[in-house]
Amino acid sequence: MNYVLYIVPIIGILALLYTFVTSKWVEKQETGDANMVELAGYIAKGAMAFLKAEWRILSIFVVMAACLLAWAGTTVPDSSPVIAIAFCLGAILSATAGYIGMNIATKANVRTTQAARTSLAKALKVSFTGGTVMGMGVAGLAILGLGGLFLVFYQLFFVGKGTAVTGLDMKRAIEVLAGFSLGAESIALFARVGGGIYTKAADVGADLVGKVEAGIPEDDVRNPATIADNVGDNVGDVAGMGADLFGSYVATILATMVLGQEIDASKDNYGGLSPIILPMFIAGIGLIFSIVGSWFVKITKETDSVQRALNIGNWSSIIMTAVASYFAVKILLPADMIHRGVQFTSMDVYYSIITGLIVGTLMSMITEYYTAMGKRPVLSIIKQSGTGHATNIIGGLSVGMESTVAPILVLAVGIVTSYFFAGLYGVSIAAAGMMATTAMQLSIDAFGPIADNAGGIAEMSRLPEEVRHRTDNLDAVGNTTAATGKGFAIASAALTSLALFAAFVGVAGITSIDIYHADVLAGLFIGGMIPFIFSSLCIAAVGRAAMDMVNEVRRQFREIPGIMEYKAKPEYEKCVAISTKASIREMIAPGAIALLVPVIVGFTFGPEVLGGLLAGVTVSGVLMGIFQSNAGGAWDNAKKSFEKGVEINGEKFFKKSEPHKASVTGDTVGDPFKDTSGPSMNILIKLMSIVSLVIAPHIGVNNYKPLFKVSGQPHISAPATQINAVPANTIVLTAKK
Amino acid sequence: MNYVLYIVPIIGILALLYTFVTSKWVEKQETGDANMVELAGYIAKGAMAFLKAEWRILSIFVVMAACLLAWAGTTVPDSSPVIAIAFCLGAILSATAGYIGMNIATKANVRTTQAARTSLAKALKVSFTGGTVMGMGVAGLAILGLGGLFLVFYQLFFVGKGTAVTGLDMKRAIEVLAGFSLGAESIALFARVGGGIYTKAADVGADLVGKVEAGIPEDDVRNPATIADNVGDNVGDVAGMGADLFGSYVATILATMVLGQEIDASKDNYGGLSPIILPMFIAGIGLIFSIVGSWFVKITKETDSVQRALNIGNWSSIIMTAVASYFAVKILLPADMIHRGVQFTSMDVYYSIITGLIVGTLMSMITEYYTAMGKRPVLSIIKQSGTGHATNIIGGLSVGMESTVAPILVLAVGIVTSYFFAGLYGVSIAAAGMMATTAMQLSIDAFGPIADNAGGIAEMSRLPEEVRHRTDNLDAVGNTTAATGKGFAIASAALTSLALFAAFVGVAGITSIDIYHADVLAGLFIGGMIPFIFSSLCIAAVGRAAMDMVNEVRRQFREIPGIMEYKAKPEYEKCVAISTKASIREMIAPGAIALLVPVIVGFTFGPEVLGGLLAGVTVSGVLMGIFQSNAGGAWDNAKKSFEKGVEINGEKFFKKSEPHKASVTGDTVGDPFKDTSGPSMNILIKLMSIVSLVIAPHIGVNNYKPLFKVSGQPHISAPATQINAVPANTIVLTAKK
Repeated sequence: MNYVLYIVPIIGILALLYTFVTSKWVEKQETGDANMVELAGYIAKGAMAFLKAEWRILSIFVVMAACLLAWAGTTVPDSSPVIAIAFCLGAILSATAGYIGMNIATKANVRTTQAARTSLAKALKVSFTGGTVMGMGVAGLAILGLGGLFLVFYQLFFVGKGTAVTGLDMKRAIEVLAGFSLGAESIALFARVGGGIYTKAADVGADLVGKVEAGIPEDDVRNPATIADNVGDNVGDVAGMGADLFGSYVATILATMVLGQEIDASKDNYGGLSPIILPMFIAGIGLIFSIVGSWFVKITKETDSVQRALNIGNWSSIIMTAVASYFAVKILLPADMIHRGVQFTSMDVYYSIITGLIVGTLMSMITEYYTAMGKRPVLSIIKQSGTGHATNIIGGLSVGMESTVAPILVLAVGIVTSYFFAGLYGVSIAAAGMMATTAMQLSIDAFGPIADNAGGIAEMSRLPEEVRHRTDNLDAVGNTTAATGKGFAIASAALTSLALFAAFVGVAGITSIDIYHADVLAGLFIGGMIPFIFSSLCIAAVGRAAMDMVNEVRRQFREIPGIMEYKAKPEYEKCVAISTKASIREMIAPGAIALLVPVIVGFTFGPEVLGGLLAGVTVSGVLMGIFQSNAGGAWDNAKKSFEKGVEINGEKFFKKSEPHKASVTGDTVGDPFKDTSGPSMNILIKLMSIVSLVIAPHIGVNNYKPLFKVSGQPHISAPATQINAVPANTIVLTAKK
Repeated sequence: MNYVLYIVPIIGILALLYTFVTSKWVEKQETGDANMVELAGYIAKGAMAFLKAEWRILSIFVVMAACLLAWAGTTVPDSSPVIAIAFCLGAILSATAGYIGMNIATKANVRTTQAARTSLAKALKVSFTGGTVMGMGVAGLAILGLGGLFLVFYQLFFVGKGTAVTGLDMKRAIEVLAGFSLGAESIALFARVGGGIYTKAADVGADLVGKVEAGIPEDDVRNPATIADNVGDNVGDVAGMGADLFGSYVATILATMVLGQEIDASKDNYGGLSPIILPMFIAGIGLIFSIVGSWFVKITKETDSVQRALNIGNWSSIIMTAVASYFAVKILLPADMIHRGVQFTSMDVYYSIITGLIVGTLMSMITEYYTAMGKRPVLSIIKQSGTGHATNIIGGLSVGMESTVAPILVLAVGIVTSYFFAGLYGVSIAAAGMMATTAMQLSIDAFGPIADNAGGIAEMSRLPEEVRHRTDNLDAVGNTTAATGKGFAIASAALTSLALFAAFVGVAGITSIDIYHADVLAGLFIGGMIPFIFSSLCIAAVGRAAMDMVNEVRRQFREIPGIMEYKAKPEYEKCVAISTKASIREMIAPGAIALLVPVIVGFTFGPEVLGGLLAGVTVSGVLMGIFQSNAGGAWDNAKKSFEKGVEINGEKFFKKSEPHKASVTGDTVGDPFKDTSGPSMNILIKLMSIVSLVIAPHIGVNNYKPLFKVSGQPHISAPATQINAVPANTIVLTAKK
């Protein structure tokens, strides 16, 4: 039975080898002239400076958190201090995932620019191959990490015990894996928030002075903030996203494993392990077919559709994964299983996986509708730009709020359907199915900022119009894929959180989370509020950092004569330093909220109130995530529509017109929405769930009494003698006698 | 025992008499010159035109809904068709409440302008007295309606039955009162949304063309939309708010009565009725002391603080009510009671009332902090106006989101504390305590738009500077009270919804709402989404109507020569018609969502899923309400700060500067936030709870099987024989066998 455990890590190793070979291919491509290389060098240097500054802070956090986990593991009988090692490993791999992506992106960017001098086909090949290095690398690291750790713990805790393997051993192994996921997701949060603040502070600052005040184009070499802006694409959209999806991927698989270990699958051929290893297998299959699918992404002519090429790659990997999953389910799982009293067959599990794939696809399609050019939502914003800045903003906010409806309905139906097929395990495996082709999603996502950077380098190097035209073509596709990728991420996060939520309930030993109880309802309110304060902190941070950037750029234009005539070089590194410093400083507070609130609430009020809090965070976080991401995407494309000219009430408007200026305001407001706070929501909800899961054994109803207990259930008060029976360290607040 | 039942309606009648006398006093005041009277006439005519158009549509709705209720009442054994009459009565009284306010406001406005020609003291007296007519009138109608109806039903259902009065009789009487509340709250929703769309479409339209494009001051008689703008103050801020607070007041008292009838208070001297009549008594006491408190609102010198005078009136009424409530509780309630198994004393109930008063006060203080000039939040928006429109918007959104934190914490502590004292009855009576001085709150609230209108008439009549200065002084205070009033309203709505929620659980006969169940969680997600789509519809409606208004005003400036030189009169009535038509058309969709969603979800998925939906609506609605109201208030005062000049990075800026223009954008975005969608949230959450309460007997677990049932609880599937036992009209979706 043991051999199956080796398959997953082996797939991971193979994927990493593939990544290495592909990466070498990218490095072999031409880099262009000295000027381009110099500019690319600034970007790479700025990006590394940020990563180093970020890692310096995070390493302190990781060491402290690991010590705490190690100590906590020794305080509860069933827990293991090994969790601390897993936590560190998760953190390191997550940071590595970000690094791999950023390293290749800062190499692929200039090589894509150079390729764009030849043809669109070649530019796509270089930029997308750069993307696949990141996609396959991140996914490979994730399943090597999870699969390898599981193998190690399996040897550690089970081998030699024979039939004496207990549920407790399994629980402990899974708990350690939760530590791995916690490490990954914490780094993901900081990387996403820090990177998001970095990129948007630079972008907003560069645009406000450069485009609006000085009237120079985007990515103009005379703009002191332009290097910081291009660095931002790498640290936010590449490194941040890499760490983010690494964390999501791991969390989703883990949640399914946790629920899987509760399943009685003793009739399978793998010692009852099959429901636990199935999610890793699905991930492995998805990774293999993501690689295969990536081979289909190519065009031959200048006029071929880039979007279509990406779609072919994406769809082929999804369909192949769906087909192959059927065999994996059939071969691995026993014919029928029971989980928390719900019986289901192996085919039911397969239907849940398909449900997840459908939900993910629908979410992407809805997101595309709300953010794509030429569709009703974006057109309505364009129309409202005709009456000024304010109506443009009102239009975008309204579109963003409206765009929550369809995704929430899809999600609700998805939850109920996958539950209908295979209970909570079904919900969880649906999320795993949705995330299976993460490698492909990430390749497509990472291609966007590479193309964006390539365009920036083309503009800064003042290359011929046709080069910039080719990179713009790639960049426009990248904007759409970025938006749909976010829809996908938030859907998977919602399902994953639900699965983690279910896992938390099981580990904490509670049987219900009843919002009819006053304290649980209070938890629900407070949980609902967290995404608001989290978003507020992220947005305000971007606003503040952007103001610093604006003032610095204004200062350079004022104090360094000759910048506008290309006679003097701006001090790029000062702007890079502002973004770096601001993002590192500002990521602390939101990160602390996500990590500390569940711990404080859990230990003070117990697991049921914490459950209410998690439900509030999840619902509110999903809504705020969709709202902000889609509003931002729609504003962005409303602005972009002006490049080709738009018609408002029969009149034609172009760039630099008053309606276009209004649309630029909307885009600027949307920037932190769609690239800082919006995409952080999905990490926030997962991270808070994972923290809860990790502390669950410590606050479980069987071995902990919360400090405050406000009569969970309306009750006939206990007689005085019973009250006295409560442990001395508990302050009892029951509804009055 | 019977005499106590008469006290409440008598207080209501006395309050209405007081209202009548006060109203006559206002009418006796001087109206000023012919020009002023003409302008005031336009405003009054426009306001009545809107009310008539609104009533025409709503009367169709009321008749249809009443027929449905009457029919439904005959289908369930324990229900009464009398509910239809109560529903109509609630609707009519709510509309009357709006009418009383609007009628007096359109008279008090021009009289305040005239009084302002003499002194600030006199202007305050006229405008505030106008406000009290509305405040006392609305509260008087509410307690006369509720108290009178209860008296009637008491005679109808109980008298003569002696000890044979059953819980069923009482349930039926309360159910009928729920119909009264439903009628009131439905009209409130339409009035608030319709009025809110009206006022902001006119305001935004008038500002965008008048102030921004034509460069004429606010309320300039040359602006074609200025009359519509002033009408808007009356239909939105007066009539809409009157119906709104009438609905809230009734809903809060009703919710407490519903929970009160479950209490075993047989040891009191009033046949066990005391917990039911207590909330009406508290309301009556609050009304009396609101009248007394209103006598303290006066100033004598030009330099006296208007805000201070209002605060003295407000505080004295709150403190007198708090003291008098003590005696009411002591006299009425028995020494101890039991509600749903929770035992508490009469003093515990009193502490809950005090908790409510404290929560309300804190909410007002927090709101004031976030929206007042000179405080950190508004100052941060001013600073961010220095870098343009976009950063101003980012600043306001960030402040709005941040402002949810403290109110949610206060609310959570308030819920748990009042529950701690007296269980769910405590939560409910806390809301009733908070709402007790509604008459005073409403007087203060209504004073604002009257002063605003008075200023408008002064400007349009081109009266001397000092007159406008006095009305501006009153108007500025009115802006602050408007903001704090909203904080208060949302807090009371949250507590009331919770009480209605508890009442719903009781009537529907369910024992828990467990978000660990997949379908309840799906309900929670969908519920959380409702406030987003509701807000989106409201905001988009304002945006669309404002565009129509902008185009009409531009057309008039273009096509009617001589407007700018005061030679030709603009066609005011065309702008009035645009606002009227748009608001009536656009209020339908959001209203339908609020009314239909609970019915559809309740009948399709059953009461537990509906409970999840309600929890989602409440949490999300409270958050969105606070976010939008405070963001709007802060933007407004950031803009107002420019009138006296602000300092940004050491430089001084005034009106017409670039930062000021950015602040105008923020204010315009904030307009629909703070006056349309934001304040509608509290009606939305209450209305959906009341609809659920009214349908609760029909979907109760004992006499209805939902159409779809997705395995509420993880379970071992029932054997086939049991599945067959489900009624034929039910489609069973349990987790698969």
